[in-house]
Amino acid sequence: MSQLDYPPPILDLIQCLKSLPGIGSRGAERLALWMLNHRQQEAKTLAISIQTTMDCITPCPECGFFVEDGASCPACADPLRDHTLICVVEEPTDILPIERSRAFNGVYHSLGGKLSPLDDIGPEDLRIDVLLQRVDAAGPDCEVILATGSDVEGEATAAYLTELLKKKQCRISRLAQGMPAGSGLEQADPLTLIKALQGRTACQ
Amino acid sequence: MSQLDYPPPILDLIQCLKSLPGIGSRGAERLALWMLNHRQQEAKTLAISIQTTMDCITPCPECGFFVEDGASCPACADPLRDHTLICVVEEPTDILPIERSRAFNGVYHSLGGKLSPLDDIGPEDLRIDVLLQRVDAAGPDCEVILATGSDVEGEATAAYLTELLKKKQCRISRLAQGMPAGSGLEQADPLTLIKALQGRTACQ
Repeated sequence: MSQLDYPPPILDLIQCLKSLPGIGSRGAERLALWMLNHRQQEAKTLAISIQTTMDCITPCPECGFFVEDGASCPACADPLRDHTLICVVEEPTDILPIERSRAFNGVYHSLGGKLSPLDDIGPEDLRIDVLLQRVDAAGPDCEVILATGSDVEGEATAAYLTELLKKKQCRISRLAQGMPAGSGLEQADPLTLIKALQGRTACQ
Repeated sequence: MSQLDYPPPILDLIQCLKSLPGIGSRGAERLALWMLNHRQQEAKTLAISIQTTMDCITPCPECGFFVEDGASCPACADPLRDHTLICVVEEPTDILPIERSRAFNGVYHSLGGKLSPLDDIGPEDLRIDVLLQRVDAAGPDCEVILATGSDVEGEATAAYLTELLKKKQCRISRLAQGMPAGSGLEQADPLTLIKALQGRTACQ
């Protein structure tokens, strides 16, 4: 007696779903069976939506944010934004968290990654040339905010960009580091406390 | 200044992903961004896999398990299985958990649901006719194991099938109810304890 198992297309689907972040073997099987059990139409809609999105979304040639074919990025095209204030982030997905804070009215620039020798990612793999052109175009009043991560690679990328930008006529700044909002001393790691102490601000 | 947001195809994709079980708003956004950030090829492979599976998987005409177009279900076609022992389950997805226990060498029958007046599911919506035909074909030595769930609808479905099958020449049985393996009295709910006491077995 041979043991019954799913037919190959279902096993392939489970394998594909398992590659999604945060989804393990059991979760992938549950998702596949949910699709097969009465939800075939919803599953097909999802498949079409994935393909449409992958086919029609391209990076904005200026800032690297997601745009539809041919359309221009609403931020880069917005005359009400301050185009002399450029916030540099690692990935296009880093842009909306800043936008949602409503504390920034400039434009963005996604590098498409960060310097990471271990992953073989050097300066030539990042959108640094376009950044330098934008800084030149923005004129001498320009300010570049380096909003790369505070991990080793993010700090190295910020240091590298600082050296490059020093040759330009622009101000360079870095996001403040310190205690996250709503958090107590108990939850803070030593490095965060060091940064919070070093960056302490005078009380008015 | 208008606030920047994802283009419509990405918002649609997030909406589709949110309909998956166990995936909320934040999880759906994370999945969509994971696909857009460097994983476009894997996302397309997933989309094709979903569509292939939804298009080519059909229910086995005998037992209702998942088969590829034209192929016959390996269990129903296996001469080494006991075809006079039929295990009746609610959904095709209930079949593999029993198969993986390696405690069953008969064949399966998925009803495609359970009696549920609240959801407007009556006997005519379940694969009961095919079951009765299979019982007739299996002959007088046939045994039907009712492995529907132990919730109200599962019990009602088992009771309904018992009444129908009593008119046939076949034995009818129900999965034992009692304490789950590896579980203590502390975790057991009162109904499970009642069933475990009622169904107690003599020690040898």
